[in-house]
Amino acid sequence: MALIVQKYGGTSVANLERFRNVAKRVVKTKDQGNNVVVVVSAMAGETDRLLTLAKEATGEPDERELDVLLATGEQVSSALLAIVLNSMGHPVKSFLGHQIKIGTDSTHGKARITSVDADKIFSELREGRIVVVAGFQGEDEQGNITTLGRGGSDTTAVAIAAALKADLCEIYTDVDGVFTTNPNICAQARKIDRISYDEMLEMASLGAKVLQTRSVEFAKKYGVTVHVRSSFYEGEGTIVCEEEVDMEQVLVSGVTYDMNQARIEIARVPDRPGIAAQFFTAINEANILVDMIIQTTSLEEGSANMAFTISKADFPKALKLARSLAKELGAKEVIAEDDVAKVSMVGVGMRSHSGVASKMFGALAQEGINIKMISTSEIKISCIIDTKYTELAVRSLHEAFDLGKGNG
Amino acid sequence: MALIVQKYGGTSVANLERFRNVAKRVVKTKDQGNNVVVVVSAMAGETDRLLTLAKEATGEPDERELDVLLATGEQVSSALLAIVLNSMGHPVKSFLGHQIKIGTDSTHGKARITSVDADKIFSELREGRIVVVAGFQGEDEQGNITTLGRGGSDTTAVAIAAALKADLCEIYTDVDGVFTTNPNICAQARKIDRISYDEMLEMASLGAKVLQTRSVEFAKKYGVTVHVRSSFYEGEGTIVCEEEVDMEQVLVSGVTYDMNQARIEIARVPDRPGIAAQFFTAINEANILVDMIIQTTSLEEGSANMAFTISKADFPKALKLARSLAKELGAKEVIAEDDVAKVSMVGVGMRSHSGVASKMFGALAQEGINIKMISTSEIKISCIIDTKYTELAVRSLHEAFDLGKGNG
Repeated sequence: MALIVQKYGGTSVANLERFRNVAKRVVKTKDQGNNVVVVVSAMAGETDRLLTLAKEATGEPDERELDVLLATGEQVSSALLAIVLNSMGHPVKSFLGHQIKIGTDSTHGKARITSVDADKIFSELREGRIVVVAGFQGEDEQGNITTLGRGGSDTTAVAIAAALKADLCEIYTDVDGVFTTNPNICAQARKIDRISYDEMLEMASLGAKVLQTRSVEFAKKYGVTVHVRSSFYEGEGTIVCEEEVDMEQVLVSGVTYDMNQARIEIARVPDRPGIAAQFFTAINEANILVDMIIQTTSLEEGSANMAFTISKADFPKALKLARSLAKELGAKEVIAEDDVAKVSMVGVGMRSHSGVASKMFGALAQEGINIKMISTSEIKISCIIDTKYTELAVRSLHEAFDLGKGNG
Repeated sequence: MALIVQKYGGTSVANLERFRNVAKRVVKTKDQGNNVVVVVSAMAGETDRLLTLAKEATGEPDERELDVLLATGEQVSSALLAIVLNSMGHPVKSFLGHQIKIGTDSTHGKARITSVDADKIFSELREGRIVVVAGFQGEDEQGNITTLGRGGSDTTAVAIAAALKADLCEIYTDVDGVFTTNPNICAQARKIDRISYDEMLEMASLGAKVLQTRSVEFAKKYGVTVHVRSSFYEGEGTIVCEEEVDMEQVLVSGVTYDMNQARIEIARVPDRPGIAAQFFTAINEANILVDMIIQTTSLEEGSANMAFTISKADFPKALKLARSLAKELGAKEVIAEDDVAKVSMVGVGMRSHSGVASKMFGALAQEGINIKMISTSEIKISCIIDTKYTELAVRSLHEAFDLGKGNG
C-alpha cells in the first residue's frame, strides 16, 4: 500500500463536472489500494475574482487581510471536493491550513512553509479516510492566515508529501508535462520523461508555468519524487526527481526563453573598487530584481563596463537610476534597450561536456543572431539576443541539439 | 469609554459601496471614544450561491463539509471590511471563528456557541485596533468548522457582547427595528422603542425576521442589551432588553401572524390514558414539528378530541400519519385543513391583566372571524383562523389595542 499525494490545479476544478472527474481519479487511486491525500487549488478564476474585490476596495489592500480573503478560494474547493467524494460513498475529510498545522513564516502573500502536522493526517488515513487539503494556505506562529503565492498549492502538496514521506507526489495540471521547449513556437518540442530538480529549476520560464519554483526547491531538499501530469488525459507526464546516472548521458534537456527582459549597460565607468557594490546597492534598495550581471574592465583605459538585465516592468525605474548613478560615477555612456530576450540551454549533462557553449553560439551565429550578453551556470547557458529572433533561436537550438528525437 | 459590538447583516455589506458605509459608521463609533468589535455576515446572496454549488454537487451534501464551504462567505466579508478600514488609516484585524475560539457543539449547520476567547479580543482592543469578526461560524472541540444556522451572525454578536461584557450590542439590518405588526398589511404599524427579551421571543414570525431567535435567548441569558437598527438610516431602532417596570404599563406590544399553518383534528377518540403520548411520539419520530396542541375530553361520551397545528410543509406527511393512527385508536373522524393562519397578541403587560383575551376574541368576533383554536402562554395569546381573514384580523387587533398610538 503506497501513500500518494495528488494536487489538482484550478483548471482541474473549474466546475462541478471537473470536480467529479477529479473525484473519480482520486477514488481510482484509493481503490488500487493506496492512501490518498488530495491538495486542491481555488476554482479557475476564483483567486482573480477575490483579488478584484480587494483591488476595488483599495489600491493597496492590507497584506494580512488579503491573505484571509484569498484563502477562501481553496477552502471552497476543498469543501466541494469532499462533498463530491462523500456523495460517492467515500469517507473523507477536508482540512484547512491551520487544521493540519501547515506552519509558515509571516511573509503574507509569499509565506514559506516551515512545518506540517503529519500525525493528524496519518490518523485520518488510518481511519480509512481520503484527506483533502486546501492548498496555498498556512498559518504563522501568531495564528494568522498566510498564503504561499501564486502556484503555492504545488508547494503545499510537496511539503505534505515530504512530511508524510509519501511514495509519490502527483501534480495534476492542464499540460501533459514539461517539454523540451514551448510547443507553440517549436513543433518538434517533446515531452521530457524524467528531469532532475536542478534542471527543472533552471528551466525557469518553461518550468515555472508547470510547477511553482519553490515547490521544486522543496522537493529537491526532501527528495520528493514529483510526477507532473495532465488531469485531462491518462498518459504519463514528467517525473521530476534526483539526478540519475543516465541523465548525464543527456547533454541538454531543454531550451527555455524569456521575452520579458531589458538590458542596461553603463559604459566606461572609471574603475575603482566598490563601484559595482555602490551601484547594485542602489538598484536593490529600489526593489529592482536583477537577473544577469556582467562587468568587464579594460586595464588600458582604466575603466569598466557594467551591464545587467532586468524585467521589462522595472526598465523605466532602473534606467532613471542608472543615468543618475552614471553621472555620479563619471561614466561616459548609458546604453539601454528593452527589446531583448534571454534564450537558455539547460541540462545536467553539460557539467561534464564543454561543447555545449560552442555548439549553442555556433547555432545562433549560423542564423545571423547577434549575442549581446552571455551568462553561464553549471547546468545552464543563457544568451541575450534581440527579441525578434527569439522563436528562430529556440527552433535552431532545439534542432542543433536534436531535442526532438530524445536524448539530444 | 464604552465597548460596543456592532453586527452588520448581508444587505449592509452587499457591495463595496456598502462596505465603505459600514466602515464609516464603525469609524464614527470609534472616534466617539469607544472600543468597537464588528461582526459581519456574508455579502447578500453569497450564502445562497455557495449553497447552490453544494446542491449541484449532490442532493444531500455532507454537513461537516457544507459548513466548511458556507463559512467562507463570512470570511470574505470580514477580510474585505478589514481591508476597507485599513485603507482608511485605521488599525484593524479580522478574525475567524477558530482564531478567537468561538467554541460550539458539533451540530453542523445549527451549532450552539459554548465559549468565546474574550482575552484575545481584549488584547487586540488594548492595542487600539478595531476587531472584525466573521459571524455565523465557530469551531467544535475537535477543531472542525461549524456554522450557527441562518441569522447565526446575530448570535455571534450577542455571544461576543456577553463574553466581553460589552455595554451595547448593535444589530444593523435593513429594517428600522421591530414593529407592532407588519407595516405591509397594516399602515398603522409602529416601530417599538423598547421590547423585553420574552416579548421578542414570542413575536416569532415578526421578530425572527429581524433577529435570530437564538440570539435573543442568548441575550436574555446573559443580560445583553441589543439595539436593532437600520444600517441605511441614522434613526434609533428597537432596544431589546430586560423587562422594565414601565413595560408592564404596555398591555400588548404587538400583533404577529403566521400563514404557514395547517390544522389536524382527530375527533372522538375513545378516551384512555396514554393516547396523546402514543400519538405525539409517532409524530415526533416522523420529525414533524407541532406548534399548538389542544385536547378536550367529553365525559359523557367517554371520548376525546385532539387537535394540533403544524407547518404547511409537514401537512401531507402529518395527515397520512393521523389517518393511520386514528384508525388504530378507533377514532371516529379526522378533520384536516391546510388553509389556516395563526394570529397572536404579545405583551408582558398581559400577565397582570385578564382583559386581553376577551378584548382579542371580541375584536375578531366583531369582524365575523371564526376562531378555530386558541392557545395561550404567559405573555401571548394565539388564535387559529381561516387564512383569508389574516390581514383583516391583524388590522382589527392592531386597532382594538390602540397599537398605532404607542402604549396601546
